[in-house]
Amino acid sequence: MDLVARLLAGDRRALARAITLTENEDPAAARLAAAVYPHTGKARTIGVTGPPGAGKSTIVDGLTHLYRREGRRVAVVAVDPTSPFSGGAILGDRIRMRRGAADPGVFIRSLATRGHLGGLSWHTGSVVRLLDAAGFDTILVETVGAGQAEVEIMRYAETTVVVMVPGLGDEVQAIKAGILEIADVLAVNKADREGADRLVRELEIMLRMDGSVGRGGPLARKEGPAAGSEPGADAAGPEPWVPPVVKTVATTDEGLPELLRAVEAHHEHLRATGGLERWRRRELAAEVRGLVRDLAGQAAHAWATADGAWEELLGRVQRREIDPRSASEGLVQEFLRHAGSGGPGARG
Amino acid sequence: MDLVARLLAGDRRALARAITLTENEDPAAARLAAAVYPHTGKARTIGVTGPPGAGKSTIVDGLTHLYRREGRRVAVVAVDPTSPFSGGAILGDRIRMRRGAADPGVFIRSLATRGHLGGLSWHTGSVVRLLDAAGFDTILVETVGAGQAEVEIMRYAETTVVVMVPGLGDEVQAIKAGILEIADVLAVNKADREGADRLVRELEIMLRMDGSVGRGGPLARKEGPAAGSEPGADAAGPEPWVPPVVKTVATTDEGLPELLRAVEAHHEHLRATGGLERWRRRELAAEVRGLVRDLAGQAAHAWATADGAWEELLGRVQRREIDPRSASEGLVQEFLRHAGSGGPGARG
Repeated sequence: MDLVARLLAGDRRALARAITLTENEDPAAARLAAAVYPHTGKARTIGVTGPPGAGKSTIVDGLTHLYRREGRRVAVVAVDPTSPFSGGAILGDRIRMRRGAADPGVFIRSLATRGHLGGLSWHTGSVVRLLDAAGFDTILVETVGAGQAEVEIMRYAETTVVVMVPGLGDEVQAIKAGILEIADVLAVNKADREGADRLVRELEIMLRMDGSVGRGGPLARKEGPAAGSEPGADAAGPEPWVPPVVKTVATTDEGLPELLRAVEAHHEHLRATGGLERWRRRELAAEVRGLVRDLAGQAAHAWATADGAWEELLGRVQRREIDPRSASEGLVQEFLRHAGSGGPGARG
Repeated sequence: MDLVARLLAGDRRALARAITLTENEDPAAARLAAAVYPHTGKARTIGVTGPPGAGKSTIVDGLTHLYRREGRRVAVVAVDPTSPFSGGAILGDRIRMRRGAADPGVFIRSLATRGHLGGLSWHTGSVVRLLDAAGFDTILVETVGAGQAEVEIMRYAETTVVVMVPGLGDEVQAIKAGILEIADVLAVNKADREGADRLVRELEIMLRMDGSVGRGGPLARKEGPAAGSEPGADAAGPEPWVPPVVKTVATTDEGLPELLRAVEAHHEHLRATGGLERWRRRELAAEVRGLVRDLAGQAAHAWATADGAWEELLGRVQRREIDPRSASEGLVQEFLRHAGSGGPGARG
């Protein structure tokens, strides 16, 4: 039985192998992705993000446990965008200590940056589809940190839970404004610590400020017309979702049932308002757009390298005879002129 | 006198205007970048990064002050990759409180994500060139956080200072492995706190482990042959640079002269070993490669949209008749066939 068939039958070893091929950007991964694609689109994806030390892993463990009690098959993808080199060894070690690690209805996997960030984001999306095709109906995507990298990764989550904790410094305060915008649900973890109630109030005030936070406020991502939104996406917004703030003490499971209910309520809201379908189309459009850029760019680069034009151009840029953008524009124009004439660029 | 001439003459208002045009991706920005490019390549760039709360801004302030005493003209670029929406207002506010803000030999500017991360990284590189052309000979690039976003931004720094502090949690420990690899100099700030000496020892041990941290260890970035390195880059490594660990208490300027000396020593090392030239060529090659990808991708996307193929293809992907990658491959092939024949793709 081949890898795809075994994966679709829910074979864990086949799934693990498929994920490794994807992570390594093996040529087989693209064929695999194409083969499983018709079997995807069934799973729910829930993202969990927040600053270092907020207790995201413990929350993910707790949610996994609760979803299992409801009979759901749960996969956890722990994404580590912090290192382009260390290959996830550190998060990988921690994963073995997780609560659901021995449960056959739970699948846990860490992903780390092997190349550039775009790669990691693409891997996350691909791995989510593999898990979906393998029959995991609930996929938790967890990511360390609270920066732009995490925002990129959270695109794959229908519902994003942002975890905050009381008592972090000023700079973390600044980060809050950024991640509030991607939050569908907020968890104030370690809520037994001093300052928890104040943090809840602060967050609630920031959420009420809404549009004033930025371009579209916290509700823009899934419900407003996105920048670069596709025609056909409904521009008239449905009734807004106000992200609830839930207090948790994840180490004792306190507040986790309430957190799960808030996540479910958000999913219900998305379904009822059509937001889910709009979000899915937007995500697919963004994915295809990214792939088209990459493929066309690769073809142009391959053509220029084969042609000897690449080294010559770089030399001119380095001698400051031409600036990088003008050089690149000239190269791409030349490439496109040659492409149709059956030159090497016709199928780079 | 036009904007370029005023900028080259060191006019601060012209510089500020040019940076705003660049941040807004105004069409004039590309012309501006082309016009100033021949006047760049003179400034030194020093990056300062590390986890939230490490005291990076205070260290940058202190270094600015010390470089000014040496008669250098100093520019500070504070990059905030945390929010794609908030537009840097928060960091912007903090900038007004900086020490060098009233000194005409100091120029301070914050940059925030307005679109995707790639945009921010591109802005940073462009702004560094504007500052260079305007006669700032020492450019400090500071960025909040310690993730992949910062690694991208630190590409523009010849010397990268990573700031750590004692007493951060486990997850920050994990981050360390990632940022050690980009560190040319390490600062252990708040060194009057408990645990500073232990942190110094830990860092020194990690640095000695070298290759075992990841693909090439902390020395790989500027001195080893990079992944995707250009032909012509010297593969035989010169004598290695071992990142020194410097204890600082930035709030009292303690250790900052030593930190500055370590930064200068790294610069000297790069110059003496030819590492600087290799690094510059590699950075330019990466920049041109990125631009070529973007431009070719944009042309393909523009062609597909004009052609009506885009919406049809998206519909098929959404109905799961075809997977995103196969769809994109087909579209790009079609585009390249049409490009040479004088269709709309010939100059998208």
